[in-house]
Amino acid sequence: MSRDARPDHPIHELLVKRWSPYAFSDRPVADADLCALFEAARWAPSSYNEQPWTFILATQQDPGEFDRLASCLVEANQVWARKAPVLAISVAHMHFSRNGKPNTCAHHDVGLAVAQLTVEATARGLVVHQMAGIVPDMVRANYQLPEGCQPLTGIAIGYAGDAQKLPDSLQDRDTAERTRKPLADFVYGGLWGNTAWAISKT
Amino acid sequence: MSRDARPDHPIHELLVKRWSPYAFSDRPVADADLCALFEAARWAPSSYNEQPWTFILATQQDPGEFDRLASCLVEANQVWARKAPVLAISVAHMHFSRNGKPNTCAHHDVGLAVAQLTVEATARGLVVHQMAGIVPDMVRANYQLPEGCQPLTGIAIGYAGDAQKLPDSLQDRDTAERTRKPLADFVYGGLWGNTAWAISKT
Repeated sequence: MSRDARPDHPIHELLVKRWSPYAFSDRPVADADLCALFEAARWAPSSYNEQPWTFILATQQDPGEFDRLASCLVEANQVWARKAPVLAISVAHMHFSRNGKPNTCAHHDVGLAVAQLTVEATARGLVVHQMAGIVPDMVRANYQLPEGCQPLTGIAIGYAGDAQKLPDSLQDRDTAERTRKPLADFVYGGLWGNTAWAISKT
Repeated sequence: MSRDARPDHPIHELLVKRWSPYAFSDRPVADADLCALFEAARWAPSSYNEQPWTFILATQQDPGEFDRLASCLVEANQVWARKAPVLAISVAHMHFSRNGKPNTCAHHDVGLAVAQLTVEATARGLVVHQMAGIVPDMVRANYQLPEGCQPLTGIAIGYAGDAQKLPDSLQDRDTAERTRKPLADFVYGGLWGNTAWAISKT
């Protein structure tokens, strides 16, 4: 069954094909692909070009390090994410390096970088499943994060696997219909709650 | 002069071509293109599929509304961004609609959505320049934002223009070399500050 998005307006294939599976194949990810994924993140725009992101990366090839990283995920995510060949944690730097002032766009800009990583992954036939469910204190403890660095998300990377092999509850989530709010509900113009003219007339 | 990224590892053309110009052409953006851009944002992933984003949109076709939106940008951004045919403000919803709890990924997920919008823009020959420099209180006042909604960024959308027509200081910024930290500085493995093996050996 296709997991493609079903857009109301045509969008680029790389965005249509992107989805977040729970089932991963055990096929490993080549180092060259991993480099390209983080290279894609690297070229994201950011406020004052601060690039307020660090990623902690672990692959199944190093079981000890993989376990250290996987243990930073909430239990419910460990169930499926431990099968992914690659895991990462995104970390936001909450202050500008040039003057120490708070960077109010830090989280946002990490999001920009991870989205670019995900586009590159899709282009390479890989899938990415991001998780809000991490244990920030575990990340801090396991990796001795410096002050001002905030663990933000977990990221599972690999090739899509067989949803049939998942526990039932996850199988349902992996095959449920993909839904989104209509454009009219979140693109406003003039007044809050008023759909923008360019959207409502098209 | 090419404004392409100069990646150390090959990445998709849509990411290589993305950049944030200060100079915009006065060519308008078709409504169908605008719909596709926000459609691309719409299909971004988000924590619990909350889609914690709203966009306020204004085009030059409605000068009153365009001015209302442009006046929400800091002065330094108004100088160049008022030439763009389309402006938008991203707004983050800071609580989950299903239970009212704080959404710690709200900013991050807005970033994911805007990055997808930007990919779609690049695919359509458009450029996007995001701005941290907005006046949140002005956004709140001009658009009567409900509680829990946080104005996050300004977004200029259009076709790249002639940098020669910019004031000198912006001309320099529009033609300066594009730089990023090396991968080794932000993809760690094992210990904080230690470049991940997959990156360092490749």
